[in-house]
Amino acid sequence: MNGNGPTKLVDPLEDPLPGVGTYEDFNTIDWVREKSKDRDRHREITNKSRQSTVALLHSVSDAFSGWLLMLLVGLMSGSALAGGIDIAAHWLTDMKGGVCLIGFWFNHEHCCWKSNETTFQERDQCPQWQSWAELITGTSEGAFAYIVNYLMYIFWALLFSFLAVTLVRAFAPYACGSGIPEIKTILSGFIIRGYLGKWTLIIKTITLVLAVSSGLSLGKEGPLVHVACCCANILCHLFTKYRKNEAKRREVLSAAAAVGVSVAFGAPIGGVLFSLEEVSYYFPLKTLWRSFFAALVAAFTLRSINPFGNSRLVLFYVEFHAPWHLVELAPFILLGIFGGLWGALFIKANIAWCRRRKTTRLGHYPVIEVLVVAALTALLAYPNSYTRMSGAELISELFNDCSLLDSSQLCGYEQVDTGVGNSLADRPAGKGLYTALWQLALALVFKMMITVITFGMKVPSGLFIPSMAVGAIAGRLLGVGMEQLAYYNHDSFIFKGWCSPGADCITPGLYAMVGAAACLGGVTRMTVSLVVIMFELTGGLEYIVPLMAATMTSKWVADAFGREGIYEAHIRLNGYPFLEPKEEFDHSSLAVDVMRPRRSDPALAVLTQEGMTVGEVEALVDSTHYSGFPVVVSQESQRLVGFVLRRDLLISIDNARKRQEGVVSASQVVFTEHAPSQAPDAPPPLRLRGIMDLSPFTVTDHTPMDITVDIFRKLGLRQCLVTHNGRLLGIITKKDILKHMAQIANRDPDSILFN
Amino acid sequence: MNGNGPTKLVDPLEDPLPGVGTYEDFNTIDWVREKSKDRDRHREITNKSRQSTVALLHSVSDAFSGWLLMLLVGLMSGSALAGGIDIAAHWLTDMKGGVCLIGFWFNHEHCCWKSNETTFQERDQCPQWQSWAELITGTSEGAFAYIVNYLMYIFWALLFSFLAVTLVRAFAPYACGSGIPEIKTILSGFIIRGYLGKWTLIIKTITLVLAVSSGLSLGKEGPLVHVACCCANILCHLFTKYRKNEAKRREVLSAAAAVGVSVAFGAPIGGVLFSLEEVSYYFPLKTLWRSFFAALVAAFTLRSINPFGNSRLVLFYVEFHAPWHLVELAPFILLGIFGGLWGALFIKANIAWCRRRKTTRLGHYPVIEVLVVAALTALLAYPNSYTRMSGAELISELFNDCSLLDSSQLCGYEQVDTGVGNSLADRPAGKGLYTALWQLALALVFKMMITVITFGMKVPSGLFIPSMAVGAIAGRLLGVGMEQLAYYNHDSFIFKGWCSPGADCITPGLYAMVGAAACLGGVTRMTVSLVVIMFELTGGLEYIVPLMAATMTSKWVADAFGREGIYEAHIRLNGYPFLEPKEEFDHSSLAVDVMRPRRSDPALAVLTQEGMTVGEVEALVDSTHYSGFPVVVSQESQRLVGFVLRRDLLISIDNARKRQEGVVSASQVVFTEHAPSQAPDAPPPLRLRGIMDLSPFTVTDHTPMDITVDIFRKLGLRQCLVTHNGRLLGIITKKDILKHMAQIANRDPDSILFN
Repeated sequence: MNGNGPTKLVDPLEDPLPGVGTYEDFNTIDWVREKSKDRDRHREITNKSRQSTVALLHSVSDAFSGWLLMLLVGLMSGSALAGGIDIAAHWLTDMKGGVCLIGFWFNHEHCCWKSNETTFQERDQCPQWQSWAELITGTSEGAFAYIVNYLMYIFWALLFSFLAVTLVRAFAPYACGSGIPEIKTILSGFIIRGYLGKWTLIIKTITLVLAVSSGLSLGKEGPLVHVACCCANILCHLFTKYRKNEAKRREVLSAAAAVGVSVAFGAPIGGVLFSLEEVSYYFPLKTLWRSFFAALVAAFTLRSINPFGNSRLVLFYVEFHAPWHLVELAPFILLGIFGGLWGALFIKANIAWCRRRKTTRLGHYPVIEVLVVAALTALLAYPNSYTRMSGAELISELFNDCSLLDSSQLCGYEQVDTGVGNSLADRPAGKGLYTALWQLALALVFKMMITVITFGMKVPSGLFIPSMAVGAIAGRLLGVGMEQLAYYNHDSFIFKGWCSPGADCITPGLYAMVGAAACLGGVTRMTVSLVVIMFELTGGLEYIVPLMAATMTSKWVADAFGREGIYEAHIRLNGYPFLEPKEEFDHSSLAVDVMRPRRSDPALAVLTQEGMTVGEVEALVDSTHYSGFPVVVSQESQRLVGFVLRRDLLISIDNARKRQEGVVSASQVVFTEHAPSQAPDAPPPLRLRGIMDLSPFTVTDHTPMDITVDIFRKLGLRQCLVTHNGRLLGIITKKDILKHMAQIANRDPDSILFN
Repeated sequence: MNGNGPTKLVDPLEDPLPGVGTYEDFNTIDWVREKSKDRDRHREITNKSRQSTVALLHSVSDAFSGWLLMLLVGLMSGSALAGGIDIAAHWLTDMKGGVCLIGFWFNHEHCCWKSNETTFQERDQCPQWQSWAELITGTSEGAFAYIVNYLMYIFWALLFSFLAVTLVRAFAPYACGSGIPEIKTILSGFIIRGYLGKWTLIIKTITLVLAVSSGLSLGKEGPLVHVACCCANILCHLFTKYRKNEAKRREVLSAAAAVGVSVAFGAPIGGVLFSLEEVSYYFPLKTLWRSFFAALVAAFTLRSINPFGNSRLVLFYVEFHAPWHLVELAPFILLGIFGGLWGALFIKANIAWCRRRKTTRLGHYPVIEVLVVAALTALLAYPNSYTRMSGAELISELFNDCSLLDSSQLCGYEQVDTGVGNSLADRPAGKGLYTALWQLALALVFKMMITVITFGMKVPSGLFIPSMAVGAIAGRLLGVGMEQLAYYNHDSFIFKGWCSPGADCITPGLYAMVGAAACLGGVTRMTVSLVVIMFELTGGLEYIVPLMAATMTSKWVADAFGREGIYEAHIRLNGYPFLEPKEEFDHSSLAVDVMRPRRSDPALAVLTQEGMTVGEVEALVDSTHYSGFPVVVSQESQRLVGFVLRRDLLISIDNARKRQEGVVSASQVVFTEHAPSQAPDAPPPLRLRGIMDLSPFTVTDHTPMDITVDIFRKLGLRQCLVTHNGRLLGIITKKDILKHMAQIANRDPDSILFN
C-alpha cells in the first residue's frame, strides 16, 4: 500500500467530488469563480469542436442555447402566464359584480359581446349579464338590491383573499409579496433555494389572480417579474450551461426580469431598461441584446393573445391631441414634488408597519390580517365607483382625454357652444365632474392609506398599479383644477397668449399620467426606465419632457428624505446581503478598519500549506464558524498561498476518510504541489491543492474602503484577504462590509443576517 | 538647520506638488485612483457643508453642476452645432447645382419658398433658383448645359474637398475621420491631448460641412459624436469637478456621445443605448440618467431649430401603412445575410486600404488623395440621379412608401384600376421603375466601392449614412422584386391567403429600412441601439421584429468572418491600448505567463522602502523606461509595500532638490511612515510616502488570465503586480495584456503602440 501511495492519492483537480464548488442555501456565490468555471467549460467545448463534427455541432448548439432559452422564456412568460393571468383576473374581478347567464366562464364584456343584443353605447349593459342582486332578488333597483350586491362583493373579496393567503401559506411561502427585493438580492449573487422553483411559480400564478381579483389595493405588474423569473429558472434546467452555473443563470434571470415588465406594460424597451437600472447587478452587453429579444418575443406573444381586447401592445393606450405649454411645467413639477413626498412617506410608513408585523404578534396571524384588510378594503371601496373598479381600469380612465361623446362622470363638463374652434376645447365643469372630483379625492385618501398596510402581506402584491393610481388621481385632480383655472382666467397674464377661449389647452389626462409617473418614481426611484415605459405607453416623444421633469423632481424630493427605494428598504428589512450598486461608499475608512479579526480579537484562523494533520484541520474547522480559511506558507511568515472554502474542505476530508485507504486523523494535509518527504511508516498524506483557490483576492490594509467596496461590487466578490507588506493580516467578507455600512449609517449592524 | 529638519520635510500628502497625479499624453489613466480622488473631494465638500451656509451652497451647487453641464452640452450640441451643420451642409450641397437669385445664402428649397411663385407639386422648381448652366449659358436644356452643370458640380466638389483637407491638415489633424474609434479609446481611459480641444471642434465643424457638401461618400452622423464630445470636453473646463478629474470627465463624454447620436438621428433613447453599447467603457447608472437628459435637451433644441424643415424630431421620418407578413421574414433574413457579408467585406477591404495608406507612399499625399477621390466621386456620381443626391436624401427617398400621387421615378408603377381595395395596392412595375432599378443597381456598386476608399481619408467622415445607403438600395431592390413576384404570382402557395390582388401586401420602403439596418449592423456590430434608433425613426413597435431579425442575422454572419466591428478594427490599426469590454478572453494562460520580467529577463526593477539614496533611485529610473516601480520591504524579502509612478517620482525628486535644502544625491529616500534614525551628520532624508500608492492591485501568479483581464476591464487598471506566496514576482500592464492577446490571435504584438 505504502509503496504506490503517491499515485493513488486523490487529487480533486482531476476528479472533482460531487458537492465541491456548489453553495449552501442562503449564501453568496463567488462570481469570479463561477464565470471562470463557465469559461473553462466553453474553452473545452471550443477545443473539442475542432476534432469532430459531432463536437462541432455540440459547440454550435451550445452557442445558440442562450437564444433558444430566451425564446422559450419569452413565449412562456408572454403566453401561458401573463395572458392567462390577465384573462383569469379579468373574469374573477367581474364575478364580484355578477355572473353571465350564457356561461359563468364569460367575463362581463365577453358576455355582452356574445349576446349580440347590445348597441355600441351600452356595451356593458346586456340582459345576459346579471348582477348578484338581480339573480337573487330579481331586481337591480332599490336599497335592498344595493345591499345584496355590496354583501356579495365583500363575500367574494373575502373568499378570494382567503384562498390566496391559504394557498401561499400551505404550498409556497415564497410566493408572497412582489418578489422584486428578493430577485434583486438573488441577482446580486445570493442563493435562496426554492424562491424561483416550480411550486412558487404555480402558486404565485394562481394566488396572484385571486389577490388581484379580491380587490385588494395591489397590482400584478411586480409579481409578473417574479413569475417570469420562475419560468426562466425552471427553463434553465433544460440546458447544462445554465443549470450548472450560477452566474450564467443569473444572466437569464436578468433577461426574465425585463420580460416581466415587458408583458406587464407592453413596453419591451422599458422592460430591458428596468432590468438594467433597477433589478440587475451584473448585466453584460450580451445579456442586454438577449433580454431585448426575449422582451420582444413576450410582448408579441401577449399581443397575439390580446388579453386587453384592444389589439394594442400596451396596458394603457393613451393618445393625446393637444401639445403642452411651457407654463404647465410648473404644475408638472408640483406633481413631481407630490410624488416624491408620497414616495418617501409611503416607504417610511410601509417599513414601519412591516417591522411591526415582524416583531409583534401581528405577524402570527397572517390569514386573519389578510381577511381583515380585504374586508376593510371591500367595505370602503364598494360605495365609491373609483375604488370599486380595479386599479388598472381606474388608471386607464384617469389617463383618458375627454371626447365630446364621452359619458363618463369625469367628462361631465357643461356643454357650451363656443361657436369657434376645437371640439375638444376646455369647458366649465358640470355637476357630474364635481361629484367625480369629490369621489376621486376620497379615493385618493383611501388608496394612500390602504396601500401602506396592504403591501407586505402574505399574498402576492405589486406596487406599480397602486402607486400609479395614487399619482393618477392626484394628477387628474390638479389637471381639472388647472383646466378650470385656465377657463375662467384665460385673460390673466399666465394663460394669455396660449389659452384663448375655445382652445383645448389643458389635458387633464396628461396630468394624470405625469402624476402616475411621479408617484411611481417616488416609491421605486426608477428614472430612465420609468420615463421609457411611459413613453412606450404614449408612443410620442412629445410628452417625454413633462414626464422627465416630474420624475426628476420626484426622485430628488424623495431622495432628500432617504436614499432608499421601496425595494432596497425591504431588502434591508429582511437582512439580505445586498451591496447597493448605485450608492457610492462615502466614508474615509480603510480596509484595516473593517477586516476581521479586530485588534482585540484572537488571530485569524489559518491553515498552513503543510505540517497540519487531518485531525488538526478538523479541530480548527469545528472550533470556528467561518466559511473559508486562508492557507499560508507557515504560521511565522503568514505569507498567503491560497484560500479554501469550509464546505469544500469538509466534503473532501469526509470523502477521503471514506474512500482513500489509510487516511486517518494523523495523516498530513498537504496543499503544496509536491508532497513533502515523510517517514516511511507515516500514513499517506491528504493532498488538497485541488480544492484550494490559488488566486484569492487581496487588498492591502491601507486600501480605502471606497475602493474595496468598488472591487466587491464590480467583481462580485464574497471575501477578500487583507495583507500588510506581503503578510496576511485579516479578511473582509461582504457581510463585514454591509455591517460596516450599517454602522456608519447608525443602524444595527446585526440586522445583516446572511453571508 | 539639522535640528528642526524633520518638521520641515516636504510631505506631499499634505501639500501635493503640481503635476503629481496627472498624466502624460498617450498614456492610460488609473480609473481607481481617479475615482478615489473624486470621492475624497466629495467627502471634503460634504464635511465642510455642515459648517457654514456658504459651504452648504457650494455643496449643493457641486451636486447640481453635473446636471447643469448636461444641459449646456445638450443645448450647445443641439443648437449651435448640429443645427448649424445641417443648415450649412444643405446650403453648400445645393450650391453644387445652382444658385438662388434672391440671395446666394438661400438653399434651393428655401429659395423657392421665398419666391411664392411655386405650387405644391413643383416645390423644387422656381425661376429664382438657377442652375449654373442657366446662369452661365442662359439655358438649362441641351448637352452643353449638361456639361456646364457637370463641370460646375465637379468644380465645387473639388473646391470643398480641397478646403476640407487643407483646413484639417493646417489646423487640426485630429479632426479627420469619424472620431469614434479614438473616442472609444479615450473613454476607456486613454489620454490624447487636443483630440477634444477647441481647435478640433472648430475645424471639425467647418470641414464636416465641406466634406459632406463635396459629395464624397461619407456622412455627418459619426463625426457629430466627436463634435458633441469636443463640446462636452470644453464645457467641462467650467466646472472644477470635471476639469480636474479624468474619470468624471469621461462620464460627461459618455453622455456627449449619446447626445451626438441623438441629434444625428433625432433618437434620444437610441443615442443613450448607442453610448452604452458601442462607445462607453465605464457607464454608471447615474450617467445613464444624465445622458438621457442631455440627449433629450439636444433633440428638442434641434427640433426647435427645425433644420429638416418637417418639424419632426427624426432624420428620416417614415410611416408605413401595411403590416408585414411572417413569410416576409425570409427576405428580411436574406437582407441580414447581405448586410453581414457586406459588413465583413467592407471592414477587411477598408482596413487593407488604410494599412496600405499607412505603410506606402500613398500616405504622404493626403491632399492629392482626397482630390482624386472627390473628382472620381463627382465624375461617376453626377450622371446617376441616385448618387448625385446626398446620402441622407437618397435614404429618405428609398425608405418612402409610394403613394398614388408620388411622382418619383421609384414610384413609376403602371396605373391599373383593380376596382376594389386599397389605393396603395401592389401594382406592376412601369418603365420609370425599371429605369430607377437599373440606376439603383449601378449606384449600389458605386457606393460599395467608393466608400471603402473614402472612409479613413484625412477629412471628417462618418460611416452611418454610406452604410445605410448601401443597405437601403439593396433592400429597395429586393423589396420591389418581392412586390413584383407577389403581384404576378399571387396565387402561388407562398402568397396565397395574404396577398390577394388589390391588396398592399409588400412595402418596398420597409425592405429598404431593414436593409439599411442590416448593413449598418454588419459594419458597426451595433445591436440594441441600432434597433432602437430604427424604432424611433418609425415610431411603431410593429416593424421592430423585421429589424431585429435582420440585425441579428447580420451580426452573426459578420461575426463569422471576424469578431471586430469597423471601429475596433481601426483602433487596432492605430495601435491604441483598448481592452475590448465585450469579447471574452478565452485562453487558458496564467498571470505568470504574461507578466514581466519573463524568465530570461533581468529581475524586476524595484525600490526598497528605505536604504536607497536619491542618487541610486535616479540611476534606476534613468536606466529603465518603466512608468512605475514597486516598492518592497527589502531586496531579500521582496514583500510588497506600494507602487510609485515614474512621473510622480521624478517630479518629487526634482522639486526636493530645488526647494528642500540639504537634499543631495546621498540623501536617503524613505517610503516608511517614520523616518529611520540616521547619523547626525547625514543629509536630511527625502520622504516620499505621500506619492506612493499604498494599495497597489495584486494577483497571484496562478491567477488565470481570464480573471486578470476581467479585473483590468472592470476596475480600469493600468497595471497589476504579481505575487507568489506573498513575494513580489512581476508586473502586468494593460499593454502586456494587449500584446499577449495579439500573440494569441497570431498578430504582431508590437502593433500595440501605447501604454
